[in-house]
Amino acid sequence: MRIVLIGTGNVATRLGLALHARNAEIIQIFGRSAANASQLAASLQCRYTVSKSEIKTDADLYILAVSDDAIAEVAAMLPKGGDRMILHTAGSVPMGILDPFSSNYGVLYPLQTLSRQKEIDFSNVPVCIEANTPSNLEKLRILAATISEQVVVIDSDQRRNLHLAAVFVCNFVNHLYAIGEASLKEQDLDFNLLRPLILETAEKAMLFSPREVQTGPAVRGNKTVIEKHLQMLEKHPEWKKIYELMSRDILKQSGRLGRGADWETRGL
Amino acid sequence: MRIVLIGTGNVATRLGLALHARNAEIIQIFGRSAANASQLAASLQCRYTVSKSEIKTDADLYILAVSDDAIAEVAAMLPKGGDRMILHTAGSVPMGILDPFSSNYGVLYPLQTLSRQKEIDFSNVPVCIEANTPSNLEKLRILAATISEQVVVIDSDQRRNLHLAAVFVCNFVNHLYAIGEASLKEQDLDFNLLRPLILETAEKAMLFSPREVQTGPAVRGNKTVIEKHLQMLEKHPEWKKIYELMSRDILKQSGRLGRGADWETRGL
Repeated sequence: MRIVLIGTGNVATRLGLALHARNAEIIQIFGRSAANASQLAASLQCRYTVSKSEIKTDADLYILAVSDDAIAEVAAMLPKGGDRMILHTAGSVPMGILDPFSSNYGVLYPLQTLSRQKEIDFSNVPVCIEANTPSNLEKLRILAATISEQVVVIDSDQRRNLHLAAVFVCNFVNHLYAIGEASLKEQDLDFNLLRPLILETAEKAMLFSPREVQTGPAVRGNKTVIEKHLQMLEKHPEWKKIYELMSRDILKQSGRLGRGADWETRGL
Repeated sequence: MRIVLIGTGNVATRLGLALHARNAEIIQIFGRSAANASQLAASLQCRYTVSKSEIKTDADLYILAVSDDAIAEVAAMLPKGGDRMILHTAGSVPMGILDPFSSNYGVLYPLQTLSRQKEIDFSNVPVCIEANTPSNLEKLRILAATISEQVVVIDSDQRRNLHLAAVFVCNFVNHLYAIGEASLKEQDLDFNLLRPLILETAEKAMLFSPREVQTGPAVRGNKTVIEKHLQMLEKHPEWKKIYELMSRDILKQSGRLGRGADWETRGL
């Protein structure tokens, strides 16, 4: 299967490297920036182009690892007709966006935070696939199974729900890490002090249901500590709002709202 | 150093086991529940009591691993006079709370989420110590160094700031995991799909500054996805508020607020 990889960002890089490591035949990179495209092409030992007229027409598969807004625009540039299959890799874009551009299309969505800077063992990355026909799905399943041990068939609606959940457990979680980092910096304390806690909290979620192992002042309804913390957050109104909202929701999810925890009566 | 350990909860259990593994001489457990106290005493191969009149008077060190509200009450039960040292283990309680009860006191605060159910390598747990005199601090440092490779001297004010940061990066993070878990459950999707993402997000924070590796729709100012997500969250008003607040704060911290990202004009 001859593959043209479109994009040079985090997803294109990590997906390209994973495919290359499994001997997939990537024949070309297409990207807007010659610097990025040539760098990725060097890693994948293939050619690259920045000109849409030079996109190879004899590939079997075109993988669009580009920003959501660019998918339709880039798909429109691709060679028409034949058996060529087009994939996108986005969480929140329905598969149907590709319908005008090919009779063979699908989605390959790696449910992971990918960075150019950080290597990853792709075999542990859940890869969510969807295709417009059963035979395309089968092709896609075979391809995905070469790079990941966790291939799941997920439709567009499930995928956008997964993406939303991923925003909570990855992007928002990372923002909480950033708040921890910033607040330690204010105290001239080293962020390394928090790192073991961050890792252990994640490792706990590998073993247990997060809801069942919730700890901290909110789930205990510890009014004294919560009020102290809210006072300490006076100079950071956004963090204070996050604290109030999270604490209230923790209490609610724990089923203790309305019984036992008296700080809730403050209207938090 | 003969130690009486007071409490039978998560901290008492993990700290007790770590001390025991390093051959510390724990001579007695004191707890309210005979079941819990006898179980922990069996693990630590020591005696236990549930009666305050039976607390051993010939120990050198009394470690109070009890809830914040119980510290003063339990400290008041301890034998008075002599060289006995009293420690508490709480993040948000000033050391001075122990002043009325002994002339030798301090704090040993393990900055980690500890559970009876989950073993932990205590040598990686940052242990924050504070004492009322330099010689007590030295004693405490020697004790703490037997169980942890990361012993740091932290005063009460710094400690409460650390504790607040820990609430963000542990308790609130875990709540975001719980939201992810609940939202997948609604879609009949397996939480295992999110677990690799959760672990990778934490591992990224081991290597990088979280602020610098923030990803997702908010930091990119991706209005289309953000609005789609907010629509999807209509039936979960609390999650929607968390989504709005976090997204807005991510954008603010990234320095992009006010330039580039147009969804902010909706007043999120």
